[in-house]
Amino acid sequence: MSLDEHNKDRVAKPHDRLALALAEDMAAVNTLIRTRMASEHAPRIPEVTAHLVEAGGKRLRPMLTLAAARLCGYDGPFHVHLAATVEFIHTATLLHDDVVDESAQRRGRPTANLLWDNKSSVLVGDYLFARSFQLMTETGNMRVLGILSNASAVIAEGEVLQLTAAQDLATDEAIYLQVIRGKTAALFSAATEVGGVIAGAPEAQVKALFAYGDALGIAFQIADDLLDYSGTTASIGKNTGDDFRERKLTLPVIKAVAKADATERAFWTRVIEKGDQHEGDLDHARALMTRHDTLNATRVEALGWAARARAALDDLPAHPLRDMLNDLADYVVARLR
Amino acid sequence: MSLDEHNKDRVAKPHDRLALALAEDMAAVNTLIRTRMASEHAPRIPEVTAHLVEAGGKRLRPMLTLAAARLCGYDGPFHVHLAATVEFIHTATLLHDDVVDESAQRRGRPTANLLWDNKSSVLVGDYLFARSFQLMTETGNMRVLGILSNASAVIAEGEVLQLTAAQDLATDEAIYLQVIRGKTAALFSAATEVGGVIAGAPEAQVKALFAYGDALGIAFQIADDLLDYSGTTASIGKNTGDDFRERKLTLPVIKAVAKADATERAFWTRVIEKGDQHEGDLDHARALMTRHDTLNATRVEALGWAARARAALDDLPAHPLRDMLNDLADYVVARLR
Repeated sequence: MSLDEHNKDRVAKPHDRLALALAEDMAAVNTLIRTRMASEHAPRIPEVTAHLVEAGGKRLRPMLTLAAARLCGYDGPFHVHLAATVEFIHTATLLHDDVVDESAQRRGRPTANLLWDNKSSVLVGDYLFARSFQLMTETGNMRVLGILSNASAVIAEGEVLQLTAAQDLATDEAIYLQVIRGKTAALFSAATEVGGVIAGAPEAQVKALFAYGDALGIAFQIADDLLDYSGTTASIGKNTGDDFRERKLTLPVIKAVAKADATERAFWTRVIEKGDQHEGDLDHARALMTRHDTLNATRVEALGWAARARAALDDLPAHPLRDMLNDLADYVVARLR
Repeated sequence: MSLDEHNKDRVAKPHDRLALALAEDMAAVNTLIRTRMASEHAPRIPEVTAHLVEAGGKRLRPMLTLAAARLCGYDGPFHVHLAATVEFIHTATLLHDDVVDESAQRRGRPTANLLWDNKSSVLVGDYLFARSFQLMTETGNMRVLGILSNASAVIAEGEVLQLTAAQDLATDEAIYLQVIRGKTAALFSAATEVGGVIAGAPEAQVKALFAYGDALGIAFQIADDLLDYSGTTASIGKNTGDDFRERKLTLPVIKAVAKADATERAFWTRVIEKGDQHEGDLDHARALMTRHDTLNATRVEALGWAARARAALDDLPAHPLRDMLNDLADYVVARLR
């Protein structure tokens, strides 16, 4: 295709349209991030942070904050601080996640724990958490501080819960929802909610922004967990079957375990609880999911959460950014069709 | 000795006198800590936290906050929140430190990373950081939030600096001071400063409280680093020589390296930079410190910082708690005489 068509295709993605609409704000966010990740005394900090922050992540979370603030009519300076706060919390979480998961790759590049060491990832993550609290404190808005400190606690609690729920076949859909709220949705919903709060939006709009971020995050994570079984390595940009090998209890597995007969249950006990996995086990797991239609049932749940995200937007003022958020909710589950 | 004499001796220690004078407040702090370390969903969190929080630490940092607030005449409820905040930050730091240092023992008990795993220590530490920010946010005092978020950044920065400064003979006394400010003094000074701020104390008193905590923390850490070479295993409750084996550039070593001739420098390069340590090396290191009188010079610096801590108290109102803080500054260096 021609360059024009290529650009049109790029711009057609809701994420890229958001990036274009918020380009000026995002430039300010990136400048603030670069300034605040500096450390006069410990050059290791910006080295490690830059490796992750400048690795070409989509900056989805800070854009949610900016979009929420702008569509509620905000024209002050602090949405930029809050967007940078959200990105710092996200980056700190990624650094610690990679230590906990002993990951070697993220976004197609070696992880910081591999390039430097676990120590640097733990301590630089702590530094970014502290920096994020400094940034949010500068807004002088107590309600925003409450929302973001609560979100941080929910995130950490979700991670610990995931740690203890993994490899345990008793993990049910309610626990799964709690885990992914902590892992993904809590920061999405805090990102959108604080955008509304800093804009001084009416309470109904703040609630709608929270509900949108929460449902978007859940849809996003369910889609991710589904694609780990139903996608192709090329389409999802990482190896499929990682969750299976790591014995994570994600929704497609939980649904299959719930419908398992005695023989199937013995299989899940062996591969997930005991971690005794052989060649062909992943294919057999996929076959069981197909037998019980759990991949499709998981897809339906993801689409349902995306629909909830779109519905939440009804309580927000009409605005081009609202339309982009609407399309974004479609987009995170579009890969599943 | 009789039980009475024993009790008298106990109560004579400034730390125990502070604990007696602040007993009611400390009971409230302990209740708040127990409430906030709970997690409805992830029982691993209170398990790991309790292991550390209830291990019989001295609770020195929260007592500093309570004492500062009380001696400035505070009679509201929030000094308890701030004291619990400070203890949570300290506990989170210990959890992450033990992962970074790969420690197996703390306060004579196995560390959490050994009893559970590194993952739990990292994530429960993150949870306690988040909880600490929730607690401080509840005070509604923006200045307090600024002080504690800055202190958190200085602490994390100091830890990263220590990581890169270790094993590097170019580390000088200025870098050492920065490291121990981050490692110890930043939380001491924030603990005392926020006590004054929450009490609405005049600016000169707030400054004095900061200066006291800063100097006390520095004296405390220099004493600790000195005793690792000059103390006995029985007197310091842990093995002497740990810093040597971990190749840490502490003040006694830095001073010895600064006075080293070519042969001595080769020794330090081998044992600290290259980590090539043999039997007798620790004794030889001690002999070099004696030759250049660096153990004594380090002691003099610790005494100097303790004196600065006492002098800072002059700007505070006369109060029995002030006298105890004065004695505490003596006490942290008394082991060195």
